[in-house]
Amino acid sequence: MHPRTDHLIDLALDEDLALGDLTSRAIFPANHRSRGFIAAKDEVTVCGVEVAARVFARVDPRLRVRLLAKDGDRVRPGRVVLRVAGPTGSLLAAERTALNFLQRLSGVATQTRRFVAAVAGTGVRIADTRKTTPGLRALEKCAVRCGGGHNHRSTLGEHVLIKDNHLAAAGSIARAVARARAAAPHLARIAVEVTTVAEAAAACRAGADVVLLDNFTPARVRAAVKSIGGRALVEVSGGVTLATVRDFALPGVSVISIGALTHSAPAVDLSLTVEGPTR
Amino acid sequence: MHPRTDHLIDLALDEDLALGDLTSRAIFPANHRSRGFIAAKDEVTVCGVEVAARVFARVDPRLRVRLLAKDGDRVRPGRVVLRVAGPTGSLLAAERTALNFLQRLSGVATQTRRFVAAVAGTGVRIADTRKTTPGLRALEKCAVRCGGGHNHRSTLGEHVLIKDNHLAAAGSIARAVARARAAAPHLARIAVEVTTVAEAAAACRAGADVVLLDNFTPARVRAAVKSIGGRALVEVSGGVTLATVRDFALPGVSVISIGALTHSAPAVDLSLTVEGPTR
Amino acid sequence: MHPRTDHLIDLALDEDLALGDLTSRAIFPANHRSRGFIAAKDEVTVCGVEVAARVFARVDPRLRVRLLAKDGDRVRPGRVVLRVAGPTGSLLAAERTALNFLQRLSGVATQTRRFVAAVAGTGVRIADTRKTTPGLRALEKCAVRCGGGHNHRSTLGEHVLIKDNHLAAAGSIARAVARARAAAPHLARIAVEVTTVAEAAAACRAGADVVLLDNFTPARVRAAVKSIGGRALVEVSGGVTLATVRDFALPGVSVISIGALTHSAPAVDLSLTVEGPTR
Amino acid sequence: MHPRTDHLIDLALDEDLALGDLTSRAIFPANHRSRGFIAAKDEVTVCGVEVAARVFARVDPRLRVRLLAKDGDRVRPGRVVLRVAGPTGSLLAAERTALNFLQRLSGVATQTRRFVAAVAGTGVRIADTRKTTPGLRALEKCAVRCGGGHNHRSTLGEHVLIKDNHLAAAGSIARAVARARAAAPHLARIAVEVTTVAEAAAACRAGADVVLLDNFTPARVRAAVKSIGGRALVEVSGGVTLATVRDFALPGVSVISIGALTHSAPAVDLSLTVEGPTR
Amino acid sequence: MHPRTDHLIDLALDEDLALGDLTSRAIFPANHRSRGFIAAKDEVTVCGVEVAARVFARVDPRLRVRLLAKDGDRVRPGRVVLRVAGPTGSLLAAERTALNFLQRLSGVATQTRRFVAAVAGTGVRIADTRKTTPGLRALEKCAVRCGGGHNHRSTLGEHVLIKDNHLAAAGSIARAVARARAAAPHLARIAVEVTTVAEAAAACRAGADVVLLDNFTPARVRAAVKSIGGRALVEVSGGVTLATVRDFALPGVSVISIGALTHSAPAVDLSLTVEGPTR
Amino acid sequence: MHPRTDHLIDLALDEDLALGDLTSRAIFPANHRSRGFIAAKDEVTVCGVEVAARVFARVDPRLRVRLLAKDGDRVRPGRVVLRVAGPTGSLLAAERTALNFLQRLSGVATQTRRFVAAVAGTGVRIADTRKTTPGLRALEKCAVRCGGGHNHRSTLGEHVLIKDNHLAAAGSIARAVARARAAAPHLARIAVEVTTVAEAAAACRAGADVVLLDNFTPARVRAAVKSIGGRALVEVSGGVTLATVRDFALPGVSVISIGALTHSAPAVDLSLTVEGPTR
Repeated sequence: MHPRTDHLIDLALDEDLALGDLTSRAIFPANHRSRGFIAAKDEVTVCGVEVAARVFARVDPRLRVRLLAKDGDRVRPGRVVLRVAGPTGSLLAAERTALNFLQRLSGVATQTRRFVAAVAGTGVRIADTRKTTPGLRALEKCAVRCGGGHNHRSTLGEHVLIKDNHLAAAGSIARAVARARAAAPHLARIAVEVTTVAEAAAACRAGADVVLLDNFTPARVRAAVKSIGGRALVEVSGGVTLATVRDFALPGVSVISIGALTHSAPAVDLSLTVEGPTR
Repeated sequence: MHPRTDHLIDLALDEDLALGDLTSRAIFPANHRSRGFIAAKDEVTVCGVEVAARVFARVDPRLRVRLLAKDGDRVRPGRVVLRVAGPTGSLLAAERTALNFLQRLSGVATQTRRFVAAVAGTGVRIADTRKTTPGLRALEKCAVRCGGGHNHRSTLGEHVLIKDNHLAAAGSIARAVARARAAAPHLARIAVEVTTVAEAAAACRAGADVVLLDNFTPARVRAAVKSIGGRALVEVSGGVTLATVRDFALPGVSVISIGALTHSAPAVDLSLTVEGPTR
Repeated sequence: MHPRTDHLIDLALDEDLALGDLTSRAIFPANHRSRGFIAAKDEVTVCGVEVAARVFARVDPRLRVRLLAKDGDRVRPGRVVLRVAGPTGSLLAAERTALNFLQRLSGVATQTRRFVAAVAGTGVRIADTRKTTPGLRALEKCAVRCGGGHNHRSTLGEHVLIKDNHLAAAGSIARAVARARAAAPHLARIAVEVTTVAEAAAACRAGADVVLLDNFTPARVRAAVKSIGGRALVEVSGGVTLATVRDFALPGVSVISIGALTHSAPAVDLSLTVEGPTR
Repeated sequence: MHPRTDHLIDLALDEDLALGDLTSRAIFPANHRSRGFIAAKDEVTVCGVEVAARVFARVDPRLRVRLLAKDGDRVRPGRVVLRVAGPTGSLLAAERTALNFLQRLSGVATQTRRFVAAVAGTGVRIADTRKTTPGLRALEKCAVRCGGGHNHRSTLGEHVLIKDNHLAAAGSIARAVARARAAAPHLARIAVEVTTVAEAAAACRAGADVVLLDNFTPARVRAAVKSIGGRALVEVSGGVTLATVRDFALPGVSVISIGALTHSAPAVDLSLTVEGPTR
Repeated sequence: MHPRTDHLIDLALDEDLALGDLTSRAIFPANHRSRGFIAAKDEVTVCGVEVAARVFARVDPRLRVRLLAKDGDRVRPGRVVLRVAGPTGSLLAAERTALNFLQRLSGVATQTRRFVAAVAGTGVRIADTRKTTPGLRALEKCAVRCGGGHNHRSTLGEHVLIKDNHLAAAGSIARAVARARAAAPHLARIAVEVTTVAEAAAACRAGADVVLLDNFTPARVRAAVKSIGGRALVEVSGGVTLATVRDFALPGVSVISIGALTHSAPAVDLSLTVEGPTR
Repeated sequence: MHPRTDHLIDLALDEDLALGDLTSRAIFPANHRSRGFIAAKDEVTVCGVEVAARVFARVDPRLRVRLLAKDGDRVRPGRVVLRVAGPTGSLLAAERTALNFLQRLSGVATQTRRFVAAVAGTGVRIADTRKTTPGLRALEKCAVRCGGGHNHRSTLGEHVLIKDNHLAAAGSIARAVARARAAAPHLARIAVEVTTVAEAAAACRAGADVVLLDNFTPARVRAAVKSIGGRALVEVSGGVTLATVRDFALPGVSVISIGALTHSAPAVDLSLTVEGPTR
């Protein structure tokens, strides 16, 4: 597990346990032990089981966790994804935090799966964006991969993506791309976001590796693809929904990137059942 | 701003800026300055403007921010909520993180507002739960208040909430409540989660301050309220949607608590527009 | 162990070991191993043995610790509470920090025990306050419980406690309580701190759950209890010493809260004895 | 202010404000402003005013603080040491944490002052030990200086202090000192803790810079001083109280070190008075 | 300044100031103020002046710093790069840490400048590697840019670089590149490290964007360039020194990457002179 | 391992792995396992093997490390210092960070060894300075010891070192030493840095424990030693190189301190070889 994920887990546990667990402390003797399991209530694509296991381990290393599904699995309602046993107070103290991670990450994976299914057979990639939940980017990007999607850039520092305000400052697409090429590492690709077919052609001429068509209709996507003529990768973004995504998965389009994979995925339902005390 | 919020902001900025901003570094000279504004695209209840301002300040103290709306304001599409001016590279480096906070928190506030509106006039409180995004609990609970909702407990440590597995361990509702009363601070209230009308009555007899009716139908809520007879506060939770919430806002019910306020609120649309360079 | 306690342990170890242990490095070969024990020198109520064990583990996971007493035990002089064995340099590096925790926490527990004994048989609770050592609140509140005391609120965020300056701002006790009731979570109790019998009666009328009598004489406590007539819990605080606490443990008083439990408890004497090298 | 002190301040604020301030949020409108002052209730030696000022600043940079005493000042009852003004909610949120620091640190300074006064005119130094509160070492060592005392070593890494278990491992005082001299930086002094007059002489012969007489009676201190004959500094420690300290302040003794300066100093009484709202 | 740089600055200050500054505390009264300047003693390419300024600000916000050179400037011996004035104790406490940053970063920039000069006119880029000092990667990569060099990838996560052990696992260059293309974000370039001309050709056929020639002689570089025929960028690495770098700057080579830019750059000499007290 | 070293390791890992390892994720199946070893390519004095082991453990506790050399060992080219086996992705993710620590720390140890060898037989100590890499001081000081050198002070807080600007403020060497003696702990030695033989004599008369001759020629060192006459330790610093160090190792000199041990030690060559997959 990456140190930063541990960091976030600690932050999340602190949110819930800053003052301990008043109820369990009152009810359970210190040596009370239980076992329980986490199961899906709906059909979901699972993501977060290792994070959930880590949450239990951070709360109490004596909690023993067994994973019964792995990230990326599609499971039916009722399927048990994780079993946990150990001190009851610790188990219940970790419950909500473990579930909060699992429900959100599985929500993102499940949402992504739907979009991927909608373009099945077209060869077009469904990709995420940087519109992720503060603090959860790496986890949510992993959830997108679990759902069959691909990652766009993870940070502002890996690749070049030139947008309208960069263009305004540079004066022209050609100059912006030239400056970027001169300054960026030789391994970085250069993408240019465009809003018209003419700009798409200009980006292509300037030597962009990727042309990002922002808020295009399918018809204009077709025109842009034709104008680009295979000299750059074509990416579509903006205003794409589950209902319309297939309309954009046109020949010549490599990637469709969608903020809603991460910023508006509803949580899916997973819950923990305590089966009773153990000795 | 609470140190923990600063902590989360730093985590979020690190996610996006761990490697700097390759594009802006290539395009903008160091002394290039711009101004811009963040505006709502839909009708939303705003939350997160001070967090957004803080994000800009953490990235570069030379960024000057002016707030034009305050948390809790209901605004129409097009309304500017924040203006920012300063070094262009810093402004663009902060943009996405500021918006990610604003869009999520305003999403929660807007979602809450809908539920609150649905029970308008009944005197029933809409409350959140502990089903929050890992790391964002305090912010999301603030968003719920901005939307007119109320907070349930924030952690496991403030109050007592006795659930089925606590009951199983204690042997009976009466013993569980008695143990909790003996061990908990004298300022803590004791709530008992029940699944039948008979349990509701038992909880009331045991001296619970609050009886939480879990997954009751409206009809059974009515029966439970009658059985409790005003000797305890009545809270309803489980399976309540925007379509059904009004049906549960019955006389004698004080609070309806809803996980979806925080775990499944879609992001609302706010975006930053750069108006061009300044001198 | 809560992450925040680990955090404090690391801070404390850093204070002592920021530059390593010059003496042990000079004297002991790397493979030198010892065993030792920590014993009480006086009759004390023990608190902190698990924290001490954790200190040894943080310094060197090869140190093996065996606990021979548990938090809350009352032990006689000479009683061994913990045994530890492993690399000598690590054992001595951890010694002072482990003892500093144990001596302070056992000091708080032992001090609390004296107050609890002084009101034995009255049914009145001895409670702590927020006058704790910066950074040690959770540990000191645990020590109070180990000594038979109860915890008051742990933070400013769990319950409502209305004091004179809140009253001044709100205009009257009635308005302050009403505002608090409207804004606070339905699980939070509302306490009002009063300085006269008349105010006590007003707080009660306003619907306070708890009336806190600040710096009252026993005679005035009696008058206030009578005026409140059982409609609210009665708490006494301010100027209570070990010599006078029994005078305040009057019928109708539920809680006596005392800052000196934590802010002025002398450390008790526990020390580590190294029994000599092991192989 | 050292980053580590900021760190501890944040930890302390988090302990109190992890969930915000429920009472102030309910009672005070956001724009409510007050002013107040912190005054001593007893005659105390002040320590911690800058830390207290920092606490207010961390909670809210808009709080304006004016210091009216400085660390080390001896003040009479009623003397105002600090004034603060600004948003009422922030002022009250910071109050308890600021006072907890001030009361403890002034307690240590005041306690130290008493010991220093007891040996006035003898030229003997009163020094602290490493028996400090976990997390507060630097602050408490500063408080000792404010009270007119001197600091012993702050960590295990600055100087060499050879104790009985080091001697056991090395085989003899002579070998232990020789090893330490060979391994330690040339700037580090070497102290040897001894329990008999014969050991004191041996430490001196071995070339110790400081001989620490542990748990000696005044008579045996005299004998040891004579045996050492000025060839090493003489330090006395163990079992020294305010009542007996003068008996140990004998000619030839340079330093008396006392754990109780820090581990058992009672808090002194300082409190914050809010003078009422400002505009 | 990026939060992570602040983090490293705090770590560095803590290393030097964990126990305060004993000498300055003894010598200077609290209100003693001085001014001083940092000047180069050799001809150097400056890097780190803003970090140095930040170090002074972290130690004491009252220290006023004026920058007289900016990162990337080539300066002659004696040139003042920074002036600082304020409390003497703070100025001297910050001195060593500020210089340690400046001397190392300017050392890297100066070293890079030499390599860049050695290939002047060839159009070949000098690039760094991931062989940086733990904790200083971003700063050292900035220093490389200040010296006229370019950055290679900053982390393992931005681009694909397939080495021999990846090839062994994948079975062939063709399969390794295919897998990478399928899994990597569409913005990531794919580089393959090869050790023979035949492998270079294979990498090119497999669709690598960059072919990295590891430990090639200039003659074999020529052969590989010919074989690649412009279908991929050519990078040279391994065993390149200041004496030989020009021999590798051949037509068709785009980049020469050199670990010694960062892992073996000697510190350059800059020192702080205190000009005397100010009022 | 000290918590601060863990902290630095985490910082270093985050620098390299903030975005994961794109190449390994693409190429290796999750259950792919390998073994490898780290070997020296030159004759080096090893330092950092435990840190390297820790790096592997932080990345993945399933990586099993076996140390085949210990810090301080002088090894010939080809000697294996560490073996590691486990999940291939984790092994390669940790590789660069582990090597970056090992190469630098072994570089410092190897450099120190050369200086120590140059003064062999003279009895003079080679010591480091505070001119260390930000964040790596404790590790680099350990490397100096591994190379047979000694440590000077580690921080500004352990001992007193009076330099020219302190002298200017105090008015004279005699007053500076007197103030330091009065204020510093009784265990701290007092060193005075001097630039002339006359100052050396004055420092000695004032009671300095150590006289530091700054930028003296060997001839002037001889004169100063004679003037000091054994009443203080003599330390030489400034402008000493490997070529000249023996000239300064004169009778009466105890210590020669050299910044280049840490600030300009070139990295030595160690590399990791993966031997192939394991089952």
